[in-house]
Amino acid sequence: MKKINAGLVGITGYAGMELARLLAGHPHMRLSMACSRAEAGKRLGQFYPFLESLPGSDVVISVFDPKEAARLCDVVFLAVPAGTAMDMAYDLLQAGVKVVDFSADFRLRDSATYEEWYKIDHKQQALLPQAVYGLPELYAQDAARTSLIANPGCYPSSVILGLYAALKHRLILLDDIVVDAKSGTSGAGRKASVPTLFCEVSDTFRAYGLPRHRHTPEIEQEVSLLAGQPVCLSFNPHLVPMNRGILSTIYTRLANPAMTLEEVHDIFSHTWKDSQWVRILPQGALPETRFVRGSMFCDIGLVVDPRTGRLTILSAIDNLCRGAAGQALANANLMCGLPMQSGLEHLAPLA
Amino acid sequence: MKKINAGLVGITGYAGMELARLLAGHPHMRLSMACSRAEAGKRLGQFYPFLESLPGSDVVISVFDPKEAARLCDVVFLAVPAGTAMDMAYDLLQAGVKVVDFSADFRLRDSATYEEWYKIDHKQQALLPQAVYGLPELYAQDAARTSLIANPGCYPSSVILGLYAALKHRLILLDDIVVDAKSGTSGAGRKASVPTLFCEVSDTFRAYGLPRHRHTPEIEQEVSLLAGQPVCLSFNPHLVPMNRGILSTIYTRLANPAMTLEEVHDIFSHTWKDSQWVRILPQGALPETRFVRGSMFCDIGLVVDPRTGRLTILSAIDNLCRGAAGQALANANLMCGLPMQSGLEHLAPLA
Amino acid sequence: MKKINAGLVGITGYAGMELARLLAGHPHMRLSMACSRAEAGKRLGQFYPFLESLPGSDVVISVFDPKEAARLCDVVFLAVPAGTAMDMAYDLLQAGVKVVDFSADFRLRDSATYEEWYKIDHKQQALLPQAVYGLPELYAQDAARTSLIANPGCYPSSVILGLYAALKHRLILLDDIVVDAKSGTSGAGRKASVPTLFCEVSDTFRAYGLPRHRHTPEIEQEVSLLAGQPVCLSFNPHLVPMNRGILSTIYTRLANPAMTLEEVHDIFSHTWKDSQWVRILPQGALPETRFVRGSMFCDIGLVVDPRTGRLTILSAIDNLCRGAAGQALANANLMCGLPMQSGLEHLAPLA
Amino acid sequence: MKKINAGLVGITGYAGMELARLLAGHPHMRLSMACSRAEAGKRLGQFYPFLESLPGSDVVISVFDPKEAARLCDVVFLAVPAGTAMDMAYDLLQAGVKVVDFSADFRLRDSATYEEWYKIDHKQQALLPQAVYGLPELYAQDAARTSLIANPGCYPSSVILGLYAALKHRLILLDDIVVDAKSGTSGAGRKASVPTLFCEVSDTFRAYGLPRHRHTPEIEQEVSLLAGQPVCLSFNPHLVPMNRGILSTIYTRLANPAMTLEEVHDIFSHTWKDSQWVRILPQGALPETRFVRGSMFCDIGLVVDPRTGRLTILSAIDNLCRGAAGQALANANLMCGLPMQSGLEHLAPLA
Repeated sequence: MKKINAGLVGITGYAGMELARLLAGHPHMRLSMACSRAEAGKRLGQFYPFLESLPGSDVVISVFDPKEAARLCDVVFLAVPAGTAMDMAYDLLQAGVKVVDFSADFRLRDSATYEEWYKIDHKQQALLPQAVYGLPELYAQDAARTSLIANPGCYPSSVILGLYAALKHRLILLDDIVVDAKSGTSGAGRKASVPTLFCEVSDTFRAYGLPRHRHTPEIEQEVSLLAGQPVCLSFNPHLVPMNRGILSTIYTRLANPAMTLEEVHDIFSHTWKDSQWVRILPQGALPETRFVRGSMFCDIGLVVDPRTGRLTILSAIDNLCRGAAGQALANANLMCGLPMQSGLEHLAPLA
Repeated sequence: MKKINAGLVGITGYAGMELARLLAGHPHMRLSMACSRAEAGKRLGQFYPFLESLPGSDVVISVFDPKEAARLCDVVFLAVPAGTAMDMAYDLLQAGVKVVDFSADFRLRDSATYEEWYKIDHKQQALLPQAVYGLPELYAQDAARTSLIANPGCYPSSVILGLYAALKHRLILLDDIVVDAKSGTSGAGRKASVPTLFCEVSDTFRAYGLPRHRHTPEIEQEVSLLAGQPVCLSFNPHLVPMNRGILSTIYTRLANPAMTLEEVHDIFSHTWKDSQWVRILPQGALPETRFVRGSMFCDIGLVVDPRTGRLTILSAIDNLCRGAAGQALANANLMCGLPMQSGLEHLAPLA
Repeated sequence: MKKINAGLVGITGYAGMELARLLAGHPHMRLSMACSRAEAGKRLGQFYPFLESLPGSDVVISVFDPKEAARLCDVVFLAVPAGTAMDMAYDLLQAGVKVVDFSADFRLRDSATYEEWYKIDHKQQALLPQAVYGLPELYAQDAARTSLIANPGCYPSSVILGLYAALKHRLILLDDIVVDAKSGTSGAGRKASVPTLFCEVSDTFRAYGLPRHRHTPEIEQEVSLLAGQPVCLSFNPHLVPMNRGILSTIYTRLANPAMTLEEVHDIFSHTWKDSQWVRILPQGALPETRFVRGSMFCDIGLVVDPRTGRLTILSAIDNLCRGAAGQALANANLMCGLPMQSGLEHLAPLA
Repeated sequence: MKKINAGLVGITGYAGMELARLLAGHPHMRLSMACSRAEAGKRLGQFYPFLESLPGSDVVISVFDPKEAARLCDVVFLAVPAGTAMDMAYDLLQAGVKVVDFSADFRLRDSATYEEWYKIDHKQQALLPQAVYGLPELYAQDAARTSLIANPGCYPSSVILGLYAALKHRLILLDDIVVDAKSGTSGAGRKASVPTLFCEVSDTFRAYGLPRHRHTPEIEQEVSLLAGQPVCLSFNPHLVPMNRGILSTIYTRLANPAMTLEEVHDIFSHTWKDSQWVRILPQGALPETRFVRGSMFCDIGLVVDPRTGRLTILSAIDNLCRGAAGQALANANLMCGLPMQSGLEHLAPLA
């Protein structure tokens, strides 16, 4: 079987690094192009010593050129900032190359919302109708039929999967949802900056971006679609002194305050019983980010408090794998006609 | 000036360790007795190498005996488990020794609530009326007149101080308070156990104790007193891969959803303007646990979200100093007629 | 192809946990038995949430019984303490089961040395001649012909691989070798103990076990064999506040102090040019433990200091994968007639 | 008693941050000037939230001007890069202000050695004779008589104190000294850079700067002076995923290989018996960086290995306090006629 050729634009960030790791073990896809203006000319194995001697390490980093990309790649992953990705995507699609965009450029169906939250003009609105929001549990069929994936944000992936069963089965009040999300520091990116230095993050804890983190409208868009009506919620990210992982603690009120943990657990378990990657933990068990480290799993724990009538949903993912590169790869698999889990199925978490 | 003699029962835990640190620098109080059954016979400086050559390091660890305590001490700190402290406190008070109890034995005014949440019979209910809940910002005057301090829990200290101004000024709805609290691992104590091993905590994040953590009734008791009516809230602790510090993110709804951040900030700032240890951060700033490390400060940040009508209060303390040993020392100072801040005033945070 | 059935005795430690991870992705071997007295009766996926839904998670933990092991397994991994493994190995071999022993029981060819350093009587000395020291780079051919593997210690794996080329090519003086080794905390095991609690390890650094760590004679045995004469060296382990990884900094003196880095680098590179897992870094580059995390790689960096005539060799491995479970799996592969790298070839480091 | 006025140039680094902490609790010295070009105009308490409400927090950050410094300060601490400090020091001394320089500009008595290792022209060689190398245990009397302190480097402080007794008493061979030093990440400074990002340091371990770290000649200068002859040694720094602390493991050979641990320990203990800050640990005990965190202590542990004839000395300090700001303050105290330990005596380690 001929291997699918994949390009990666934006090799220097953590999501790009993670994708290089995953592609090194993919049986049917290989890295054929890696782009970075700053690092052009280096072998990828030189830039990423962990990759040395593995598939992909001999690729020489180059400056992005859509024509060259079209010559070398069936699919290109864009791990570049919001605002930069949209035009690259246009050029690639024009050249007949499939695109998985890690940025937010095509995630929001309403370009006005994008412009309000990102303060960036949307120059490729015409592409929005064909962009598929690449959360496989919701949109796998659409992903298989498009050439442009808007790869979901890390926080939204954890929150939407966490809320899905509760929304589908109308278990909760829609006007009282609070998300307290905690992320490892890789989520802040790999740019030189003082606030993410080791000594500024280690042995400390803080919130950031309150109350207007950019993942808010993305979460609200998908939650509203699932709920069948507009939902406004409170999203509050925090920075954890760890490398990888997101735990979202989602506070909701039960529509029926008398509902028991057993009943809620049954509904969640039934909803996800055929899922490959969403694991509903046993009653009483709570998820931990280490148990999904380096994998595609989303672990969900449930708490019902009869004192307050609240259902608390805890959702854990790996922000770089499930929340970025792994999910991107699942989407690329779907677009390229491979099984969704190809290259991802043997990822036992590195606990 | 003659130094006050202080005893410490339960030297092997983190709160005891922190108290030994603080007493080593106290100008008017000194450690005169240190008790631990398991470590009896060792010099304290041998058991705690960090203390070697400092005041207190030559104290020989002994087995607790109330008569000996009465001979050696003006005040005794009990850093022993709930259920063990109550009888020790009785014996010490009988012998004329002042007591600061780190455990929950005297924190809850209603012994039935204590017995429900702690599953321990309360054998010293007669002492409850004289026990003062030792949060100095609320009860400093009472503390100066008693011989028995119920030293507050770490989480409750952060939450009650965080909510105080909002409750006093009736800014928030009382039936929709959710506390998402995050603690460093020293809060889990210094017992040999697998779940708090380095490799079980490092590079991971998890919630625990949901939905019935024992600090819940303590928080509700004081919040209800401040609100003037019973309050039931949701309290949700999480474990952070760091040593020290608590950040409590407190989600509330504004009674008046049109209230602005500026208005809320003015009220909080005015409420705490004469406080030595509560610092209201500037508008837009959020607290971090490192900025209070090793100190008595409680840093409070405020977020108002007009989209949701919510006021989010973020409160950061050091769980071992402000949340245990430092607060205990402030209470002991008050009971012994010293200035509240004696031995605590030069504690610049080790950021 | 029928899968090889593998048993694991001692599931609760970190090496056992790592082996469970690796077996979950092995194409030709599967976990058929998991033993632990303390956890018997639980499903493995219940005990290890990270494993849930993956191959092996449905195995029910049982108490070790050699007859049952013979019924269920082609090969058994013993992840039990030194002194316990030897008799288990005897019983399994008698029952026709291949054995990979993670303990030191069969590593030292001289049982007197074993007894001196481990203070344990060796009750299975008759098995020593057939035991193969399972460092594949040295003994792969022997491993393929035996039924009993003494799986190397984590530190020795890093040190022996680091020194190999220098010894083979007589580059260094044999009477002046100092190893300063640093290990992640998983190397200390998964037993409840105060010294390995998070708060006792985080944000601190210490040496331990000096000057008589038990891995010393194991290193000296293999180094002496490579050197062709007895070598006595200084081995000094340290504990790093990280989960995984070993970096050994090996200080040697060049036999020819005028030798250049380029010359040394050429010799090392040539020696290892066909190795799958030993990577000689480019001149000037130094290894980091993260670049081998979760993999079989041993990364080696070289420093020549003309001022002092010293060659410093830095060797990095993952202590749980290359230093324990992964290496054990390579040995089991060899014993069972599989390619050495089966199940290990797609382990791109989780950097 | 009138307070001494102290200025600090270079407020944004970790050493400057630590000095601000220490000055906040100094009974006889106060921060009267804080300089940083980048942060000029901010209140210090705004820039360093941990300092808010403490002495010094109201100082407004300014651009350095020697005349203004002379007006405001009795002594100025220079926490600026090597090469920048020398001219500032000249200007301040001309203006009659005492200077403590944190950089290396005045540490090396031989300007040629400085220029060789730092690749910077020395433009103030005339000041070298009056510069005192500010390790109080060696040069306290000189410090009391000068106006210019070359504050020692962090690594050298730990190594020189560790070796002092062995050199003074000629216990070791001078041609076989290897230092394997490990430092917390604050030692790498507070500049925005990718290699010191949290995710590049956490859960990994690496060496750096081998074999020509700039602290080498500084160590050799003082070791040679103590030995009475030129000493060339091997110095090898490593980066630890922790904030603060240095542990130097110093490998030496005993001049008399039959010397026992007891004999060596007696000599070290006797040498340091009157020292306020150097603590010789009991036989068998090894130092840990946490036991000196935030303090002036240098903890020394001793290992004698009769197998190899080696004496291994382990020396632990806090790199920011003893290794930079605290030592600087001790020197400033001496220059200003205060007791050396003023403002430093109640620094119990934050273990």
